[in-house]
Amino acid sequence: MTDVPDLAGFERLLYEHIPLASAMQVGVRAFDGETLTVHAPLAANRNHYGTAFGGSLYTVALVAGWGLARLLVAAPARVVVQSARADYKRPVNEDLTAIARVAGAGPAAIAAEFAARGKMRLDVEIRIADHGRPAFALHARFAARADSDA
Amino acid sequence: MTDVPDLAGFERLLYEHIPLASAMQVGVRAFDGETLTVHAPLAANRNHYGTAFGGSLYTVALVAGWGLARLLVAAPARVVVQSARADYKRPVNEDLTAIARVAGAGPAAIAAEFAARGKMRLDVEIRIADHGRPAFALHARFAARADSDA
Repeated sequence: MTDVPDLAGFERLLYEHIPLASAMQVGVRAFDGETLTVHAPLAANRNHYGTAFGGSLYTVALVAGWGLARLLVAAPARVVVQSARADYKRPVNEDLTAIARVAGAGPAAIAAEFAARGKMRLDVEIRIADHGRPAFALHARFAARADSDA
Repeated sequence: MTDVPDLAGFERLLYEHIPLASAMQVGVRAFDGETLTVHAPLAANRNHYGTAFGGSLYTVALVAGWGLARLLVAAPARVVVQSARADYKRPVNEDLTAIARVAGAGPAAIAAEFAARGKMRLDVEIRIADHGRPAFALHARFAARADSDA
């Protein structure tokens, strides 16, 4: 079992140490043990057409994936993104809600592997919809390494 | 031949209509007919380790690629990103400088195709270095469509 996740601590880290996340007004909404939901208002993340800016869609999704990886390793860790593939399917005309889910192993297997090895890769799928229709997808690969300073 | 590119107009569009670009303090530096260089200071784009935030690396690269595509079609156009592949090779410990270059056809061929067809896809490679060493690469595909309102 994992410890109770520190969502407030993750949001504080974003706001205090990552100016872009603060400018985007990113908010961590929910973690159900398998998925992490991150929100950002459209107004702070619009483009010149009034829809969601491509850089904002990517970044809110990246934050969701990164936060999920941090939560699932369930131990102090340095987690960095290694690569990502973004697909823009349609414009987003509402606030940005990114839902991240790990591809492959479940939460218990991830925490166990990380506890045993002290490092691992995690592939995370993040999706953003526009009024219920798939609008943006990110597949991101993260590397996690045990770090007592994290 | 293309018209003289309106770099100042592109930068104004970023600052007036895309809050994230403004928050990142993105600046358009140079266009030599084939490559577009875009800059963003590290301070506004750092992560909690003091290096460049992954979302900022992606976004400054995306802006460079998007700006280059707008310049190369050499006509009023709506240009949107369709997909992108990001590779993070090493941390960036200095200001972010993204250099965008079109993969494949040269500038004259791009302007001619767009003038003839009124729409096209452009594949753009964008690179960011850390003190001269490759640190981040983005391959982005854009779709351009003639738009007299653009």
